[in-house]
Amino acid sequence: MEKAMPYVNIKITRDGATAEQKKALIEGVTQLLVDTLDKNPATTTVIIDEIDTDNWGIGGQTVTERRNAAK
Amino acid sequence: MEKAMPYVNIKITRDGATAEQKKALIEGVTQLLVDTLDKNPATTTVIIDEIDTDNWGIGGQTVTERRNAAK
Amino acid sequence: MEKAMPYVNIKITRDGATAEQKKALIEGVTQLLVDTLDKNPATTTVIIDEIDTDNWGIGGQTVTERRNAAK
Amino acid sequence: MEKAMPYVNIKITRDGATAEQKKALIEGVTQLLVDTLDKNPATTTVIIDEIDTDNWGIGGQTVTERRNAAK
Amino acid sequence: MEKAMPYVNIKITRDGATAEQKKALIEGVTQLLVDTLDKNPATTTVIIDEIDTDNWGIGGQTVTERRNAAK
Amino acid sequence: MEKAMPYVNIKITRDGATAEQKKALIEGVTQLLVDTLDKNPATTTVIIDEIDTDNWGIGGQTVTERRNAAK
Repeated sequence: MEKAMPYVNIKITRDGATAEQKKALIEGVTQLLVDTLDKNPATTTVIIDEIDTDNWGIGGQTVTERRNAAK
Repeated sequence: MEKAMPYVNIKITRDGATAEQKKALIEGVTQLLVDTLDKNPATTTVIIDEIDTDNWGIGGQTVTERRNAAK
Repeated sequence: MEKAMPYVNIKITRDGATAEQKKALIEGVTQLLVDTLDKNPATTTVIIDEIDTDNWGIGGQTVTERRNAAK
Repeated sequence: MEKAMPYVNIKITRDGATAEQKKALIEGVTQLLVDTLDKNPATTTVIIDEIDTDNWGIGGQTVTERRNAAK
Repeated sequence: MEKAMPYVNIKITRDGATAEQKKALIEGVTQLLVDTLDKNPATTTVIIDEIDTDNWGIGGQTVTERRNAAK
Repeated sequence: MEKAMPYVNIKITRDGATAEQKKALIEGVTQLLVDTLDKNPATTTVIIDEIDTDNWGIGGQTVTERRNAAK
Protein backbone atom coordinates (compact mmCIF):
# COMPACT_ATOMS: atom_id res chain seq x y z
CA MET A 1 0.00 0.00 0.00
CA GLU A 2 1.23 3.44 -0.86
CA LYS A 3 2.36 5.22 2.25
CA ALA A 4 0.74 8.46 3.24
CA MET A 5 2.28 11.89 2.71
CA PRO A 6 2.23 13.77 5.97
CA TYR A 7 1.99 17.53 6.16
CA VAL A 8 3.49 19.40 9.09
CA ASN A 9 3.10 23.07 9.96
CA ILE A 10 5.32 24.53 12.67
CA LYS A 11 4.67 28.01 14.04
CA ILE A 12 7.40 29.71 16.06
CA THR A 13 7.97 33.28 17.14
CA ARG A 14 10.24 35.27 14.82
CA ASP A 15 13.40 35.20 16.94
CA GLY A 16 16.20 34.82 14.44
CA ALA A 17 16.08 31.10 13.74
CA THR A 18 18.89 30.49 11.25
CA ALA A 19 18.62 28.64 7.95
CA GLU A 20 20.76 25.90 9.53
CA GLN A 21 18.35 25.54 12.46
CA LYS A 22 15.38 25.37 10.13
CA LYS A 23 17.15 22.70 8.05
CA ALA A 24 17.77 20.65 11.19
CA LEU A 25 14.15 21.03 12.24
CA ILE A 26 12.82 19.93 8.83
CA GLU A 27 15.23 17.00 8.68
CA GLY A 28 14.38 15.94 12.22
CA VAL A 29 10.62 16.07 11.92
CA THR A 30 10.71 14.18 8.63
CA GLN A 31 12.81 11.41 10.20
CA LEU A 32 10.52 11.34 13.22
CA LEU A 33 7.51 10.60 11.01
CA VAL A 34 9.43 7.70 9.47
CA ASP A 35 10.38 6.36 12.89
CA THR A 36 7.01 6.68 14.61
CA LEU A 37 4.49 6.17 11.81
CA ASP A 38 6.50 4.64 8.94
CA LYS A 39 5.66 7.59 6.69
CA ASN A 40 7.39 8.16 3.36
CA PRO A 41 10.07 10.83 3.83
CA ALA A 42 10.13 11.69 0.11
CA THR A 43 6.65 13.16 0.26
CA THR A 44 6.66 14.64 3.75
CA THR A 45 6.05 18.39 3.59
CA VAL A 46 7.07 20.70 6.44
CA ILE A 47 6.21 24.40 6.50
CA ILE A 48 7.62 26.75 9.15
CA ASP A 49 5.81 30.02 9.91
CA GLU A 50 7.72 32.66 11.86
CA ILE A 51 5.31 34.96 13.71
CA ASP A 52 6.03 38.46 15.01
CA THR A 53 5.94 38.67 18.80
CA ASP A 54 3.22 41.37 18.55
CA ASN A 55 1.02 38.80 16.78
CA TRP A 56 1.48 35.88 19.21
CA GLY A 57 -0.54 35.87 22.40
CA ILE A 58 -0.36 33.59 25.39
CA GLY A 59 -2.19 34.05 28.67
CA GLY A 60 -4.03 37.04 27.23
CA GLN A 61 -0.84 39.02 26.51
CA THR A 62 1.35 39.36 23.46
CA VAL A 63 4.82 37.83 23.68
CA THR A 64 6.15 41.38 23.24
CA GLU A 65 4.35 42.49 26.41
CA ARG A 66 5.49 39.46 28.37
CA ARG A 67 9.10 40.01 27.45
CA ASN A 68 8.91 43.70 28.31
CA ALA A 69 7.33 42.86 31.66
CA ALA A 70 10.09 40.31 32.39
CA LYS A 71 12.89 42.82 31.84
CA MET B 1 -9.63 17.70 35.48
CA GLU B 2 -7.00 19.76 33.78
CA LYS B 3 -8.61 22.33 31.55
CA ALA B 4 -7.88 22.34 27.85
CA MET B 5 -5.53 24.80 26.15
CA PRO B 6 -7.31 26.41 23.24
CA TYR B 7 -5.50 27.58 20.14
CA VAL B 8 -6.88 30.47 18.10
CA ASN B 9 -5.72 31.68 14.70
CA ILE B 10 -7.08 34.98 13.41
CA LYS B 11 -6.46 36.05 9.83
CA ILE B 12 -7.08 39.66 8.89
CA THR B 13 -6.08 41.77 5.91
CA ARG B 14 -2.89 43.78 6.43
CA ASP B 15 -4.47 47.18 7.01
CA GLY B 16 -2.34 48.79 9.65
CA ALA B 17 -3.69 47.14 12.80
CA THR B 18 -1.67 48.66 15.63
CA ALA B 19 0.16 46.76 18.37
CA GLU B 20 -2.46 48.17 20.78
CA GLN B 21 -5.32 46.80 18.71
CA LYS B 22 -3.68 43.39 18.49
CA LYS B 23 -3.15 43.39 22.27
CA ALA B 24 -6.84 44.17 22.78
CA LEU B 25 -7.84 41.41 20.38
CA ILE B 26 -5.64 38.82 22.10
CA GLU B 27 -6.85 39.88 25.54
CA GLY B 28 -10.46 39.82 24.43
CA VAL B 29 -10.47 36.45 22.72
CA THR B 30 -8.65 34.86 25.67
CA GLN B 31 -11.27 36.24 28.08
CA LEU B 32 -14.07 35.09 25.78
CA LEU B 33 -12.82 31.50 25.95
CA VAL B 34 -12.87 31.70 29.75
CA ASP B 35 -16.40 33.12 29.73
CA THR B 36 -17.97 30.76 27.19
CA LEU B 37 -16.07 27.50 27.64
CA ASP B 38 -14.28 27.88 31.00
CA LYS B 39 -10.89 27.49 29.31
CA ASN B 40 -7.64 28.20 31.11
CA PRO B 41 -6.41 31.67 30.08
CA ALA B 42 -2.80 30.91 31.04
CA THR B 43 -2.43 28.38 28.25
CA THR B 44 -4.61 29.98 25.58
CA THR B 45 -2.56 30.70 22.46
CA VAL B 46 -3.66 33.29 19.90
CA ILE B 47 -1.84 33.85 16.60
CA ILE B 48 -2.75 36.73 14.29
CA ASP B 49 -1.83 36.51 10.59
CA GLU B 50 -1.93 39.72 8.58
CA ILE B 51 -2.50 38.96 4.89
CA ASP B 52 -1.70 41.24 1.94
CA THR B 53 -4.81 42.38 0.09
CA ASP B 54 -3.41 40.85 -3.14
CA ASN B 55 -3.43 37.47 -1.39
CA TRP B 56 -6.97 37.58 0.03
CA GLY B 57 -9.84 36.74 -2.28
CA ILE B 58 -13.57 37.02 -1.73
CA GLY B 59 -16.26 36.57 -4.35
CA GLY B 60 -13.62 35.56 -6.90
CA GLN B 61 -11.72 38.86 -6.65
CA THR B 62 -8.78 39.99 -4.58
CA VAL B 63 -9.47 42.57 -1.89
CA THR B 64 -7.13 44.88 -3.85
CA GLU B 65 -9.39 44.64 -6.90
CA ARG B 66 -12.55 45.17 -4.89
CA ARG B 67 -11.19 48.27 -3.25
CA ASN B 68 -9.99 49.69 -6.56
CA ALA B 69 -13.40 49.00 -8.10
CA ALA B 70 -15.12 50.78 -5.19
CA LYS B 71 -13.12 53.99 -5.62
CA MET C 1 -13.24 51.51 1.87
CA GLU C 2 -14.70 48.04 2.07
CA LYS C 3 -13.96 46.50 5.42
CA ALA C 4 -12.00 43.29 5.62
CA MET C 5 -13.51 39.87 6.26
CA PRO C 6 -11.68 38.22 9.10
CA TYR C 7 -11.31 34.48 9.36
CA VAL C 8 -10.97 32.84 12.77
CA ASN C 9 -10.12 29.23 13.54
CA ILE C 10 -10.50 28.02 17.12
CA LYS C 11 -9.17 24.63 18.15
CA ILE C 12 -10.36 23.14 21.43
CA THR C 13 -10.21 19.66 22.89
CA ARG C 14 -13.32 17.57 22.28
CA ASP C 15 -14.86 17.85 25.75
CA GLY C 16 -18.56 18.10 25.11
CA ALA C 17 -18.91 21.77 24.22
CA THR C 18 -22.62 22.24 23.56
CA ALA C 19 -24.18 23.84 20.50
CA GLU C 20 -25.20 26.71 22.79
CA GLN C 21 -21.62 27.25 23.95
CA LYS C 22 -20.35 27.21 20.38
CA LYS C 23 -23.02 29.75 19.38
CA ALA C 24 -21.92 32.01 22.25
CA LEU C 25 -18.28 31.65 21.22
CA ILE C 26 -19.00 32.48 17.55
CA GLU C 27 -21.18 35.43 18.51
CA GLY C 28 -18.59 36.71 20.97
CA VAL C 29 -15.55 36.50 18.74
CA THR C 30 -17.43 38.16 15.88
CA GLN C 31 -18.44 41.06 18.13
CA LEU C 32 -14.89 41.30 19.46
CA LEU C 33 -13.56 41.84 15.94
CA VAL C 34 -16.06 44.66 15.47
CA ASP C 35 -15.07 46.26 18.77
CA THR C 36 -11.29 46.00 18.45
CA LEU C 37 -10.66 46.26 14.71
CA ASP C 38 -13.93 47.62 13.27
CA LYS C 39 -14.37 44.51 11.11
CA ASN C 40 -17.58 43.75 9.26
CA PRO C 41 -19.54 41.16 11.27
CA ALA C 42 -21.55 40.05 8.23
CA THR C 43 -18.49 38.53 6.59
CA THR C 44 -16.60 37.29 9.64
CA THR C 45 -16.10 33.53 9.43
CA VAL C 46 -15.39 31.44 12.54
CA ILE C 47 -14.56 27.73 12.37
CA ILE C 48 -14.30 25.61 15.53
CA ASP C 49 -12.28 22.37 15.42
CA GLU C 50 -12.82 19.90 18.26
CA ILE C 51 -9.75 17.70 18.69
CA ASP C 52 -9.61 14.30 20.40
CA THR C 53 -7.50 14.35 23.57
CA ASP C 54 -5.27 11.60 22.09
CA ASN C 55 -4.41 13.98 19.26
CA TRP C 56 -3.58 17.07 21.34
CA GLY C 57 -0.16 17.26 22.95
CA ILE C 58 1.24 19.75 25.43
CA GLY C 59 4.53 19.47 27.26
CA GLY C 60 5.38 16.35 25.27
CA GLN C 61 2.34 14.40 26.49
CA THR C 62 -1.13 13.89 25.11
CA VAL C 63 -3.98 15.51 27.03
CA THR C 64 -5.27 11.96 27.62
CA GLU C 65 -2.03 11.03 29.40
CA ARG C 66 -2.00 14.20 31.46
CA ARG C 67 -5.55 13.69 32.64
CA ASN C 68 -4.87 10.06 33.52
CA ALA C 69 -1.75 11.09 35.45
CA ALA C 70 -3.76 13.71 37.37
CA LYS C 71 -6.38 11.24 38.57
CA MET D 1 -31.23 26.30 1.92
CA GLU D 2 -28.48 28.83 2.26
CA LYS D 3 -25.37 27.62 0.47
CA ALA D 4 -22.17 27.12 2.39
CA MET D 5 -19.24 29.55 2.37
CA PRO D 6 -16.08 27.67 1.56
CA TYR D 7 -12.69 28.75 2.83
CA VAL D 8 -9.57 27.92 0.85
CA ASN D 9 -5.95 28.36 1.94
CA ILE D 10 -3.23 27.92 -0.69
CA LYS D 11 0.40 27.76 0.33
CA ILE D 12 3.06 28.23 -2.35
CA THR D 13 6.77 28.96 -2.21
CA ARG D 14 7.64 32.65 -2.51
CA ASP D 15 8.80 32.64 -6.13
CA GLY D 16 7.56 35.88 -7.54
CA ALA D 17 3.93 35.06 -8.27
CA THR D 18 2.49 38.25 -9.75
CA ALA D 19 -0.68 40.01 -8.64
CA GLU D 20 -2.20 38.94 -11.96
CA GLN D 21 -1.39 35.28 -11.32
CA LYS D 22 -2.84 35.46 -7.85
CA LYS D 23 -6.01 37.07 -9.24
CA ALA D 24 -6.33 34.24 -11.77
CA LEU D 25 -5.83 31.65 -9.05
CA ILE D 26 -8.46 33.21 -6.77
CA GLU D 27 -10.93 33.57 -9.64
CA GLY D 28 -10.31 30.00 -10.78
CA VAL D 29 -10.62 28.29 -7.43
CA THR D 30 -13.81 30.23 -6.64
CA GLN D 31 -15.36 29.15 -9.95
CA LEU D 32 -14.23 25.56 -9.36
CA LEU D 33 -16.15 25.45 -6.07
CA VAL D 34 -19.26 26.63 -7.89
CA ASP D 35 -18.81 24.00 -10.60
CA THR D 36 -18.02 21.01 -8.40
CA LEU D 37 -19.95 21.68 -5.20
CA ASP D 38 -22.45 24.40 -6.13
CA LYS D 39 -20.95 26.75 -3.54
CA ASN D 40 -21.83 30.43 -3.37
CA PRO D 41 -19.03 32.42 -5.03
CA ALA D 42 -19.97 35.63 -3.20
CA THR D 43 -18.90 34.20 0.13
CA THR D 44 -15.97 32.03 -0.95
CA THR D 45 -12.79 33.16 0.77
CA VAL D 46 -9.35 32.31 -0.63
CA ILE D 47 -6.11 33.13 1.20
CA ILE D 48 -2.71 32.65 -0.44
CA ASP D 49 0.37 32.25 1.77
CA GLU D 50 3.76 32.68 0.11
CA ILE D 51 6.46 30.80 2.04
CA ASP D 52 10.21 31.41 1.94
CA THR D 53 12.13 28.49 0.42
CA ASP D 54 14.17 28.22 3.65
CA ASN D 55 10.92 27.53 5.51
CA TRP D 56 9.48 24.87 3.17
CA GLY D 57 10.77 21.33 3.49
CA ILE D 58 10.14 18.30 1.34
CA GLY D 59 11.91 14.96 1.58
CA GLY D 60 13.75 16.17 4.68
CA GLN D 61 15.42 19.10 2.91
CA THR D 62 14.50 22.73 2.48
CA VAL D 63 13.53 23.84 -1.01
CA THR D 64 16.58 26.13 -0.87
CA GLU D 65 18.87 23.12 -0.39
CA ARG D 66 17.18 21.12 -3.13
CA ARG D 67 17.53 23.95 -5.63
CA ASN D 68 21.17 24.48 -4.73
CA ALA D 69 21.85 20.75 -5.11
CA ALA D 70 20.16 20.75 -8.53
CA LYS D 71 22.34 23.56 -9.90
CA MET E 1 14.70 24.84 -11.28
CA GLU E 2 12.61 22.40 -9.36
CA LYS E 3 9.03 23.50 -9.30
CA ALA E 4 7.31 24.17 -6.01
CA MET E 5 4.88 21.80 -4.33
CA PRO E 6 1.75 23.69 -3.45
CA TYR E 7 -0.42 22.78 -0.50
CA VAL E 8 -4.14 23.53 -0.55
CA ASN E 9 -6.61 23.25 2.31
CA ILE E 10 -10.31 23.56 1.52
CA LYS E 11 -12.86 23.85 4.31
CA ILE E 12 -16.52 23.27 3.49
CA THR E 13 -19.57 22.64 5.64
CA ARG E 14 -20.41 18.95 6.09
CA ASP E 15 -23.32 18.74 3.67
CA GLY E 16 -22.96 15.39 2.04
CA ALA E 17 -20.29 16.09 -0.58
CA THR E 18 -19.80 12.77 -2.38
CA ALA E 19 -16.49 11.02 -3.01
CA GLU E 20 -17.01 11.84 -6.71
CA GLN E 21 -17.41 15.55 -5.97
CA LYS E 22 -14.31 15.57 -3.79
CA LYS E 23 -12.36 13.81 -6.56
CA ALA E 24 -13.49 16.44 -9.05
CA LEU E 25 -12.51 19.23 -6.66
CA ILE E 26 -9.03 17.78 -6.04
CA GLU E 27 -8.48 17.18 -9.75
CA GLY E 28 -9.67 20.66 -10.62
CA VAL E 29 -7.64 22.61 -8.08
CA THR E 30 -4.50 20.66 -8.98
CA GLN E 31 -4.97 21.49 -12.67
CA LEU E 32 -5.68 25.12 -11.81
CA LEU E 33 -2.30 25.42 -10.06
CA VAL E 34 -0.62 24.05 -13.19
CA ASP E 35 -2.50 26.50 -15.42
CA THR E 36 -2.07 29.65 -13.34
CA LEU E 37 1.29 29.18 -11.63
CA ASP E 38 2.98 26.33 -13.55
CA LYS E 39 3.13 24.19 -10.40
CA ASN E 40 4.03 20.50 -10.49
CA PRO E 41 0.81 18.46 -10.27
CA ALA E 42 2.65 15.35 -9.01
CA THR E 43 3.48 17.03 -5.72
CA THR E 44 0.40 19.19 -5.22
CA THR E 45 -1.36 18.24 -1.98
CA VAL E 46 -5.03 19.07 -1.39
CA ILE E 47 -6.77 18.44 1.94
CA ILE E 48 -10.54 18.88 2.33
CA ASP E 49 -11.98 19.47 5.81
CA GLU E 50 -15.74 19.00 6.26
CA ILE E 51 -17.01 21.06 9.18
CA ASP E 52 -20.23 20.51 11.14
CA THR E 53 -22.71 23.35 10.68
CA ASP E 54 -22.73 23.88 14.48
CA ASN E 55 -19.01 24.64 14.26
CA TRP E 56 -19.09 27.11 11.34
CA GLY E 57 -20.09 30.68 12.07
CA ILE E 58 -20.77 33.56 9.70
CA GLY E 59 -22.18 36.93 10.63
CA GLY E 60 -22.06 35.97 14.30
CA GLN E 61 -24.37 32.97 13.89
CA THR E 62 -23.74 29.29 13.29
CA VAL E 63 -24.76 27.92 9.91
CA THR E 64 -27.21 25.71 11.80
CA GLU E 65 -28.96 28.79 13.22
CA ARG E 66 -29.04 30.55 9.86
CA ARG E 67 -30.61 27.59 8.16
CA ASN E 68 -33.20 27.19 10.90
CA ALA E 69 -34.04 30.89 10.68
CA ALA E 70 -34.46 30.63 6.89
CA LYS E 71 -36.99 27.82 7.09
CA MET F 1 14.12 36.08 28.01
CA GLU F 2 11.03 33.95 28.07
CA LYS F 3 11.29 31.20 25.51
CA ALA F 4 8.73 30.93 22.75
CA MET F 5 5.84 28.46 22.72
CA PRO F 6 5.84 26.61 19.44
CA TYR F 7 2.68 25.27 17.87
CA VAL F 8 2.83 22.23 15.60
CA ASN F 9 0.05 20.81 13.44
CA ILE F 10 0.58 17.40 11.84
CA LYS F 11 -1.84 16.12 9.22
CA ILE F 12 -1.76 12.41 8.35
CA THR F 13 -4.16 10.14 6.53
CA ARG F 14 -6.56 8.26 8.80
CA ASP F 15 -4.85 4.86 8.68
CA GLY F 16 -5.21 3.49 12.16
CA ALA F 17 -2.40 5.32 13.96
CA THR F 18 -2.59 4.05 17.54
CA ALA F 19 -2.70 6.16 20.69
CA GLU F 20 0.83 4.86 21.43
CA GLN F 21 2.12 6.03 18.04
CA LYS F 22 0.56 9.43 18.51
CA LYS F 23 2.12 9.71 21.98
CA ALA F 24 5.53 8.87 20.49
CA LEU F 25 5.04 11.45 17.75
CA ILE F 26 4.04 14.20 20.19
CA GLU F 27 6.92 13.36 22.53
CA GLY F 28 9.40 13.27 19.66
CA VAL F 29 8.43 16.51 17.99
CA THR F 30 8.42 18.33 21.33
CA GLN F 31 11.95 17.08 22.08
CA LEU F 32 13.07 18.00 18.57
CA LEU F 33 12.01 21.62 19.13
CA VAL F 34 14.09 21.67 22.32
CA ASP F 35 17.11 20.20 20.53
CA THR F 36 17.04 22.33 17.39
CA LEU F 37 15.61 25.66 18.55
CA ASP F 38 15.87 25.56 22.36
CA LYS F 39 12.11 25.89 22.71
CA ASN F 40 10.32 25.37 26.01
CA PRO F 41 8.80 21.87 26.03
CA ALA F 42 6.26 22.77 28.73
CA THR F 43 4.42 25.10 26.38
CA THR F 44 4.86 23.28 23.08
CA THR F 45 1.48 22.38 21.60
CA VAL F 46 1.11 19.61 19.02
CA ILE F 47 -2.18 18.85 17.25
CA ILE F 48 -2.60 15.81 15.01
CA ASP F 49 -5.34 15.79 12.37
CA GLU F 50 -6.27 12.45 10.83
CA ILE F 51 -7.79 12.95 7.37
CA ASP F 52 -9.99 10.49 5.46
CA THR F 53 -8.31 9.17 2.32
CA ASP F 54 -11.25 10.50 0.24
CA ASN F 55 -10.37 13.99 1.47
CA TRP F 56 -6.60 13.90 0.78
CA GLY F 57 -5.41 14.51 -2.76
CA ILE F 58 -1.95 14.22 -4.24
CA GLY F 59 -1.09 14.43 -7.93
CA GLY F 60 -4.70 15.31 -8.73
CA GLN F 61 -6.13 12.08 -7.28
CA THR F 62 -7.49 11.17 -3.89
CA VAL F 63 -5.42 8.75 -1.82
CA THR F 64 -8.39 6.37 -2.06
CA GLU F 65 -8.12 6.33 -5.86
CA ARG F 66 -4.36 5.88 -5.82
CA ARG F 67 -4.60 2.93 -3.48
CA ASN F 68 -7.33 1.33 -5.55
CA ALA F 69 -5.28 1.82 -8.72
CA ALA F 70 -2.23 0.22 -7.05
CA LYS F 71 -4.10 -2.95 -6.07
